Amino acid sequence: MAVKAIVAHGGGPTAVINASLVGLTEECGRQGLHLAGARYGLAGLLRGDVLDLSGCEAGLLSEIAATPGSALGSSRLALADEDYERMFAHLRRAEIRVFFYTGGNGSMETALRIGQHARTAGYEMQVIGIPKTIDNDLSVTDHTPGYASTARFFGCAARDVGEDNRSLPSPICVLETLGRNAGWIVAATSLARSHPDDAPHLIYLPERRISLDRIAADVERVYRRLGRAVVAVCEGQLDENGRAFGADVDRAESDVQRLASNLGHTLARLLSARLGIRARAEKPGLLGRCCGEFAVPLDRREAFACGQAAAVAARAGHSEVMVALHRDSSTFLTPLDTVARVERLLPAEWIHPDGHDVLPAFRDYAAPLTGEIRGWRHL
Amino acid sequence: MAVKAIVAHGGGPTAVINASLVGLTEECGRQGLHLAGARYGLAGLLRGDVLDLSGCEAGLLSEIAATPGSALGSSRLALADEDYERMFAHLRRAEIRVFFYTGGNGSMETALRIGQHARTAGYEMQVIGIPKTIDNDLSVTDHTPGYASTARFFGCAARDVGEDNRSLPSPICVLETLGRNAGWIVAATSLARSHPDDAPHLIYLPERRISLDRIAADVERVYRRLGRAVVAVCEGQLDENGRAFGADVDRAESDVQRLASNLGHTLARLLSARLGIRARAEKPGLLGRCCGEFAVPLDRREAFACGQAAAVAARAGHSEVMVALHRDSSTFLTPLDTVARVERLLPAEWIHPDGHDVLPAFRDYAAPLTGEIRGWRHL
Repeated sequence: MAVKAIVAHGGGPTAVINASLVGLTEECGRQGLHLAGARYGLAGLLRGDVLDLSGCEAGLLSEIAATPGSALGSSRLALADEDYERMFAHLRRAEIRVFFYTGGNGSMETALRIGQHARTAGYEMQVIGIPKTIDNDLSVTDHTPGYASTARFFGCAARDVGEDNRSLPSPICVLETLGRNAGWIVAATSLARSHPDDAPHLIYLPERRISLDRIAADVERVYRRLGRAVVAVCEGQLDENGRAFGADVDRAESDVQRLASNLGHTLARLLSARLGIRARAEKPGLLGRCCGEFAVPLDRREAFACGQAAAVAARAGHSEVMVALHRDSSTFLTPLDTVARVERLLPAEWIHPDGHDVLPAFRDYAAPLTGEIRGWRHL
Repeated sequence: MAVKAIVAHGGGPTAVINASLVGLTEECGRQGLHLAGARYGLAGLLRGDVLDLSGCEAGLLSEIAATPGSALGSSRLALADEDYERMFAHLRRAEIRVFFYTGGNGSMETALRIGQHARTAGYEMQVIGIPKTIDNDLSVTDHTPGYASTARFFGCAARDVGEDNRSLPSPICVLETLGRNAGWIVAATSLARSHPDDAPHLIYLPERRISLDRIAADVERVYRRLGRAVVAVCEGQLDENGRAFGADVDRAESDVQRLASNLGHTLARLLSARLGIRARAEKPGLLGRCCGEFAVPLDRREAFACGQAAAVAARAGHSEVMVALHRDSSTFLTPLDTVARVERLLPAEWIHPDGHDVLPAFRDYAAPLTGEIRGWRHL
């Protein structure tokens, strides 16, 4: 009888997470594992909302592998201790012997805890992590499936918004990218620059808190030189006091919370008031993680390979490990406790000493992942 | 000696306006017209900021034809009477005999006035309009270069944001598109729907004012059925009193203006407060008109053909006409006064009687222009 396995997705979807799902499903078939999928992540698993993946028709799977978003559904549910108990009871009752969890460093911590529960209870169940995050902030792995597609999206977005801004100049344009604590995504706005004056003219990294005074001075300097300034900033950027921009000038608490979710807009308003010149904000938003047209083929292949490698690892008896990627797309395994809750930030030595740009080492790292982003020529 | 011509761009750039520029430049070469380009539209022309286009190298031109944004630069300058005088004096001094103006219905009115100035002054100068607007609101022409690319962008954006929302449901998601008075762009969010429950679940058209009460009731109905609701609305949508949403609840005038430029965000906040469920907004913004990856090949070919047709029309002695497109991409000429300031709205009979969707006639019109937008399959 086939060994029973289950897979769940945790956290935000990406443009290529479904490739991992299909890589895993296909390889489980070859390895003699019967695979079920939890709908809507651990939240669905707790409700017993489970789908048979091994029974899926091959044609459907190959189409699913090319779609963005999570075909299985995901969840951001934070598990309480009793949830672990309930979930574990469910897995045990269903005689699940392999638990695959696809996610980032928070999900890997959850996977680790599920494995610990199984060990404590003396129930034999392998736990295997499959890496997934647009944020590229998982440690050990060279890069994470999902990142390259989002990086390409924002590289192209910065180039094209910059082109629009060059056509019909708006004095200040703040481009807000995805990304909370790690600067990998906002750094990618640099990738399509081919001339020194190409947008974005300023890139701030969440690894460095920055004051409005500093940003305003930087913007004014660029504006005096070029007559315009495109500024890239991620949604998690904090000011020098560790607060969201505008928190000290906006009146009500509700306002602060509202505006904090709209950082680019707030920053544009503050810069405009400070400098007395017009400013606008652009926030492509979630499209940066779900845009089908921007899924990078290499990213999709690697995501697929990570899913396959997870099934192979399960068959080989590994547990409490996550699949990781070498630079050359080959995979290896790393213990879950090397990645759980560990947040890999952009290396300090890749950030410009003045904090308003990235250095060439970032491009050397990222461009092979995103593929070349062609800069436009000008008259 | 070659007849001297000049071209200028008016209003917001598109993903294919440069194809029109290169089509015009190449055809002027064949027709024996010497072409200059005004930098930054009429604002640049008034400053004498002019570029020789006939001297551009062919390889550069063919690359420029594939870029989004306006390679020449554009302007939204509203001309005063004395500006017309000054501009006309400039054109006369430079012995410009053909004036090409690429833009929408506002630009065509400007072109008409320039032509009238020339006639009144007894100065022989032809004026030829080249159609360009993402808004598709020019009359007479079947469709306008620039529209299909933006329509494709927002069709895909609605599909992919919908897919993201299906993966990790956020109860309410408001997707704000470009578009002020005409619903052509927001209607295009319907183009990737392949199942009845695909996003967007509600589409409002600026041709119909709508109350927050009605939107909230519609959203609640969808939410009760699906557990989520994706709502598409354009930046120009007004409430039943003809005001921007939130204008009656936001305190300061400056707030109103600020929030009016951020309609999706405001609407999400109002819906959340009204219904007591979480809501978020997505606003891909200007990327919808400048994203190089979404330029539709047919749109680019038609834009190129419109530029060519303008040069041919000039050589044939036409004046005060705009190039227009038939459905089959062939071009014809229409008098400027048939298009100047005329705003073509979405036909009332293409709008759902309840005002929250478009009818199939819209897809019959738009899908051949954007090309098929493949819907994603689901498990």
